[in-house]
Amino acid sequence: MSAPLLEQLIDALRVLPGVGQKTAQRMAYHLLEREREGGTRLADMLAQAMERIGHCAQCRDFSETDLCPTCANDSRERSQLCVVESPADRLAIENATGFRGVYFVLQGRLSPLDGIGPRELGLEQLDQRLAQGEIGEMIIATSATVEGEATAHYLAQLARARQVRPSRLAQGLPLGGELEFVDRGTLSHAFGSRNEVQE
Amino acid sequence: MSAPLLEQLIDALRVLPGVGQKTAQRMAYHLLEREREGGTRLADMLAQAMERIGHCAQCRDFSETDLCPTCANDSRERSQLCVVESPADRLAIENATGFRGVYFVLQGRLSPLDGIGPRELGLEQLDQRLAQGEIGEMIIATSATVEGEATAHYLAQLARARQVRPSRLAQGLPLGGELEFVDRGTLSHAFGSRNEVQE
Repeated sequence: MSAPLLEQLIDALRVLPGVGQKTAQRMAYHLLEREREGGTRLADMLAQAMERIGHCAQCRDFSETDLCPTCANDSRERSQLCVVESPADRLAIENATGFRGVYFVLQGRLSPLDGIGPRELGLEQLDQRLAQGEIGEMIIATSATVEGEATAHYLAQLARARQVRPSRLAQGLPLGGELEFVDRGTLSHAFGSRNEVQE
Repeated sequence: MSAPLLEQLIDALRVLPGVGQKTAQRMAYHLLEREREGGTRLADMLAQAMERIGHCAQCRDFSETDLCPTCANDSRERSQLCVVESPADRLAIENATGFRGVYFVLQGRLSPLDGIGPRELGLEQLDQRLAQGEIGEMIIATSATVEGEATAHYLAQLARARQVRPSRLAQGLPLGGELEFVDRGTLSHAFGSRNEVQE
């Protein structure tokens, strides 16, 4: 019999994604043996984050404040709106591209079978924003999956109804991708959507 | 720019073993999106565990109380002492075997290069316990690595000096192990230490 508190800690750690019994045990022992300070800091950060992090009123991204730093930043270009599925996607675009516009985070994608419809994704709020006339282009950066495509299709209709130009991330061969190892769907799409080579 | 508190949480999560930037990010988003309650519970358990879990005065295992439940249990056989490297090893033995004796947890193994000597493993305390004369057999369950073997050798000497019989876990083919896939060292050892088949 281990100490009950230790068992409770191991059990609590399993709330983390991809962490099962064995990993949780290893994490608990590691913290107790070598990282008491780090563990205490983690406890503090977790408690604060769970309590204080909410959603930005404008873009639905996670934020401690009513408006997230990006939405509150006056130097961002408000005529370009990039719609992403998750905060992680937003971060990936922010880090990889020079995009200086603003975002809208769906926190999911259309999936009627899971009960995720336009309401859950805040599309009413998005529609209101499109109606304000400030936005010229809506960049739809949902993922290239079936559900992501369905969501993109719905979003494009929403944009057109408000006279906003919708655009979608380019699809094709990944940079540095060997033709031999690219999946059939991607290769077929890239072949069909080939571009004329400019002189 | 993400919310600073979110970044601090992601940074704090990296204290967990095997968790890098990407995984920490995924964990933080997962907790915020779907597991606020679990996250709060984890924060609470972590804070309590880091604060309250110490070591058992007798076996050095993790314990909330001065003596761990096993050492405090009068029905355990005190003549058999099983020495293990870590609390995880102790738990594995407790779950897999019918051992009813008591334990001693080294919390490491001899490794002079890392500055881990007899003092760090609490071997003085172990020696005092052997000197009390209550223990008849010391089962050395350190791992089958070079350092584990060195530690086992040292422990056996300690036991013999106190007229305690040392024993070591059997080594050979793992149960269900295909000969073809067993490593050379194990196979060579198992071959050399073959036992006569009883009628």
